[in-house]
Amino acid sequence: MIRTDLAIENKEMYDAKNNGQKIEIPGVEVDTDSYEEGINVTRIKIADENGSAVMQKPMGSYITIELPKAANGAEDLKKVAAKAVGNELKKLVPFHYHLKVLVIGLGNEKVTPDALGPHTVSKIRVTRHLFLLYNVDGDEEQGCVSALCPGVMASTGMESAELIQGAAQIAQPEVVLAIDALAARNVERIGTTIQITDTGISPGAGTGNMRKNLTEESIGRKVIAIGVPTVIDAGTMVLDSLSGYLSDAAEAEKYLDDTGLEMIVTTSDIDQSIHDFSEIIADAINIALHPGIYS
Amino acid sequence: MIRTDLAIENKEMYDAKNNGQKIEIPGVEVDTDSYEEGINVTRIKIADENGSAVMQKPMGSYITIELPKAANGAEDLKKVAAKAVGNELKKLVPFHYHLKVLVIGLGNEKVTPDALGPHTVSKIRVTRHLFLLYNVDGDEEQGCVSALCPGVMASTGMESAELIQGAAQIAQPEVVLAIDALAARNVERIGTTIQITDTGISPGAGTGNMRKNLTEESIGRKVIAIGVPTVIDAGTMVLDSLSGYLSDAAEAEKYLDDTGLEMIVTTSDIDQSIHDFSEIIADAINIALHPGIYS
Amino acid sequence: MIRTDLAIENKEMYDAKNNGQKIEIPGVEVDTDSYEEGINVTRIKIADENGSAVMQKPMGSYITIELPKAANGAEDLKKVAAKAVGNELKKLVPFHYHLKVLVIGLGNEKVTPDALGPHTVSKIRVTRHLFLLYNVDGDEEQGCVSALCPGVMASTGMESAELIQGAAQIAQPEVVLAIDALAARNVERIGTTIQITDTGISPGAGTGNMRKNLTEESIGRKVIAIGVPTVIDAGTMVLDSLSGYLSDAAEAEKYLDDTGLEMIVTTSDIDQSIHDFSEIIADAINIALHPGIYS
Amino acid sequence: MIRTDLAIENKEMYDAKNNGQKIEIPGVEVDTDSYEEGINVTRIKIADENGSAVMQKPMGSYITIELPKAANGAEDLKKVAAKAVGNELKKLVPFHYHLKVLVIGLGNEKVTPDALGPHTVSKIRVTRHLFLLYNVDGDEEQGCVSALCPGVMASTGMESAELIQGAAQIAQPEVVLAIDALAARNVERIGTTIQITDTGISPGAGTGNMRKNLTEESIGRKVIAIGVPTVIDAGTMVLDSLSGYLSDAAEAEKYLDDTGLEMIVTTSDIDQSIHDFSEIIADAINIALHPGIYS
Repeated sequence: MIRTDLAIENKEMYDAKNNGQKIEIPGVEVDTDSYEEGINVTRIKIADENGSAVMQKPMGSYITIELPKAANGAEDLKKVAAKAVGNELKKLVPFHYHLKVLVIGLGNEKVTPDALGPHTVSKIRVTRHLFLLYNVDGDEEQGCVSALCPGVMASTGMESAELIQGAAQIAQPEVVLAIDALAARNVERIGTTIQITDTGISPGAGTGNMRKNLTEESIGRKVIAIGVPTVIDAGTMVLDSLSGYLSDAAEAEKYLDDTGLEMIVTTSDIDQSIHDFSEIIADAINIALHPGIYS
Repeated sequence: MIRTDLAIENKEMYDAKNNGQKIEIPGVEVDTDSYEEGINVTRIKIADENGSAVMQKPMGSYITIELPKAANGAEDLKKVAAKAVGNELKKLVPFHYHLKVLVIGLGNEKVTPDALGPHTVSKIRVTRHLFLLYNVDGDEEQGCVSALCPGVMASTGMESAELIQGAAQIAQPEVVLAIDALAARNVERIGTTIQITDTGISPGAGTGNMRKNLTEESIGRKVIAIGVPTVIDAGTMVLDSLSGYLSDAAEAEKYLDDTGLEMIVTTSDIDQSIHDFSEIIADAINIALHPGIYS
Repeated sequence: MIRTDLAIENKEMYDAKNNGQKIEIPGVEVDTDSYEEGINVTRIKIADENGSAVMQKPMGSYITIELPKAANGAEDLKKVAAKAVGNELKKLVPFHYHLKVLVIGLGNEKVTPDALGPHTVSKIRVTRHLFLLYNVDGDEEQGCVSALCPGVMASTGMESAELIQGAAQIAQPEVVLAIDALAARNVERIGTTIQITDTGISPGAGTGNMRKNLTEESIGRKVIAIGVPTVIDAGTMVLDSLSGYLSDAAEAEKYLDDTGLEMIVTTSDIDQSIHDFSEIIADAINIALHPGIYS
Repeated sequence: MIRTDLAIENKEMYDAKNNGQKIEIPGVEVDTDSYEEGINVTRIKIADENGSAVMQKPMGSYITIELPKAANGAEDLKKVAAKAVGNELKKLVPFHYHLKVLVIGLGNEKVTPDALGPHTVSKIRVTRHLFLLYNVDGDEEQGCVSALCPGVMASTGMESAELIQGAAQIAQPEVVLAIDALAARNVERIGTTIQITDTGISPGAGTGNMRKNLTEESIGRKVIAIGVPTVIDAGTMVLDSLSGYLSDAAEAEKYLDDTGLEMIVTTSDIDQSIHDFSEIIADAINIALHPGIYS
């Protein structure tokens, strides 16, 4: 009933059940790394179905980049973070002369904690039309990049996944790169954590009112997802605040069900987080996809 | 420790302590009324200090307009609601030939649940520059209206109240009319309730990260505030969900303090609420201040 | 070399060549009508290829709705205008139980005079997802409406027409209804004229930097276009200002070519025009497509 | 009748009258400099009233930074440009421990070519509230910066200059730094030129519908203005296109007067220019005012 989109939090919950001991899970490989400015990387690989069952996540790679809590205006930290994310992304999407990528900004531009995708996409370098204009099929300095913000169903009346499939048929990308706002369990992860995964986005993920399903299976192309937690599920927060008081949490959850409204919990400076992280991720994508222009 | 900006919720909590009985409070007058389309009005007048102490609100008038939960696209309901709010507003700000009003849109335009004020102000009819242009000191059809969105301190480095005082010295209004997003206790009030009060806005009110104080005392002019609840305080939600389980709520609140972050709880369709209620309130203000043009 | 997207201006130019006499053109039928508040309608039908050659426009119907120049805040005029446009639109898209429409907001949301389409689309009632949710194939009160703002090629890297085709395959509409900003010859048409046509949108139309082609031929479905002039082509303005001075205008146009930049001419209050006309057109569309809800 | 806000264009027109010879004007000092990436600087100092009369500009310093025409995505050029502008700005506003600056974003956020000021201000580091919070009166790394976007008179009903004076009384800055969109004569200057001046902003300057007057005389504090040309005056364009054909330009201008509308001419990719130049200028301001944080 605790909900999180972050593989690293599933691992933390597993460890917590074992009294905080970091126990190895069969089928789950974990290694850690670090960058300058106190940036840490944890790479979790869920290698088999046992690992998937224990971690409650699909098989695949989950890379978590953790930033120290930043003072406003920490420009140096943002630059190092962009390089770190760009570097990790390059491993999943290696640059080559014919690289074609479709970048998708998921979420609702008009709801601040859900606007990470559209904000990020507005800052990336789109090039596919230039490749068409000059009639070239590749470039040594930059990838052939197209982009789409499919909006939300309440605005379009259409499923995002169907619109993305339409765009993929036009642009014929090798990789779909989807940016999305995520739900975390721990409020401290808001504004400090970035997750990259090659498993795409599963239904039920994200900040709330969307049925999303963006995986290699549904789209027919490799899907890399980059996400940043911007909300905590209201039920998760209530349950966490009750832990220690109750053995049976089910009743407490009733409070939320009774309201009959979907609620989200976020921080009051979420606009600044969305601004900063859309810049970091857009820079990272530009670095990974256009290595001759950004560095 | 339960936090609400709505006088009607203070009254409800008082009644709840008395097992749901609606008991008269000395110094507090309550009367009710209704409009078409299922719209109800409750007028609470806190007439003396005893009433103020029991209600935990400053002395003055609090008018609550409650809309039925509306399906998306309920255009008729929105029109009736605008007329109802305009009608109640006219009683506090009667139109006359020399009427001068300064409308203030409080809050952060970039954080959806805090953006009610700026969105509303962008839709009202501003006329003061026309009065200057044609060099007239009054009009039979419309008021002399100026408007300001003072932004938030993190963007300007200045207190909103000081900027508003500066604008009041320029425009010399008879009334300052401030629009703000509010915090409610009950999530069902989000998107269904409007409060008008002649007590202005007290420090600590609103959606979170602002020190606000906009009262006749601080500004030197009559201040009417129109507010709509768009968030629930995270602490309030946790406490409410714990009620029945704990006698001592203080410990539970520790969960929130420990996170060290200010959190807000809102509904996942808050963008639609902000859109609808900014239209309703802007229409109501136009009806009240420009009776010869809007009706 | 004079450029206009308005059929009524082609007719005016033809008449001007004939010393202002309104001469009948074989293959072109013209009739006029009027609504309240000084709103006039001119219906031009280009019935054969001779008419098309003389008018320099594809065969089809062109309905021009002309509003008197409005003072700011002319709410009554806007309401009558919305009803007039809705009424004319109903004749081209009659409502029925199974009506399915895909509404397209063409243009660049970030360039004010090009933003009419996206602004209009954000205000229409989208319903297709509700039809899916309740699993119904029609309704007596409202149409099954989906919507898309395909953006501009510089932002997506993809042709708008291809993205629209993708959406049409998803939504399977009977009619595609496209909203676009247009170029006029006469600056007085900015903010006063609306054109509805069943010929769609031809390449080279619109406000500037887009290759557009949205016709029944290219999309495979009936395309109705609603447009409002928001710019004058810079070359057209220069040529018009030179008329009377020069017999050979070609040289004057060199000035523009030499600059090597695409320029647009617009009015300095274009933001207010975009605001007002997106409301008028969105209301008109809601009235035509959802007759049981809007009127 | 030719209108330009750029001192360098007044100089060019003077030279043009002298058959292109660069003649020294008594009371006007000109020197040039250059930065990397093909960036040129021209510093014009109007030292006396003769110079002012010939140049048709108030006495003071006018620094013009000219960028080569940039391909989209020229990130390196933008970085060098920000450093060049920051460097020139530092000479007019030297950093010191007690530096207090009020940054003003002039113009209408909703009209793309007029939105340079608000876009720039949204990207600068505002710190005054932190100085208040920590109760310090200076800092070795960063200035005490406040910011205001006063909007336009049609939205507020109040003169920008009066609102700015109110803010200056609150923040008590040593310098007011105003960002504004300018009018140029030559369309090639759109998106390539930045002007810094210590003469403030005179009435009649800017992109159109504003009466602006922001000078040391009107505000009582040193005013530095940073501007970027984003429009050409429609009359100027017509007159320029007629030059060579007519000896008497006055009649041609009648075309524009007759339309009775204020028109502006801009480039069709003005949104990209506003985006790029607001980043360059915001970076430059951050570099100049917060030298310990940005470089």
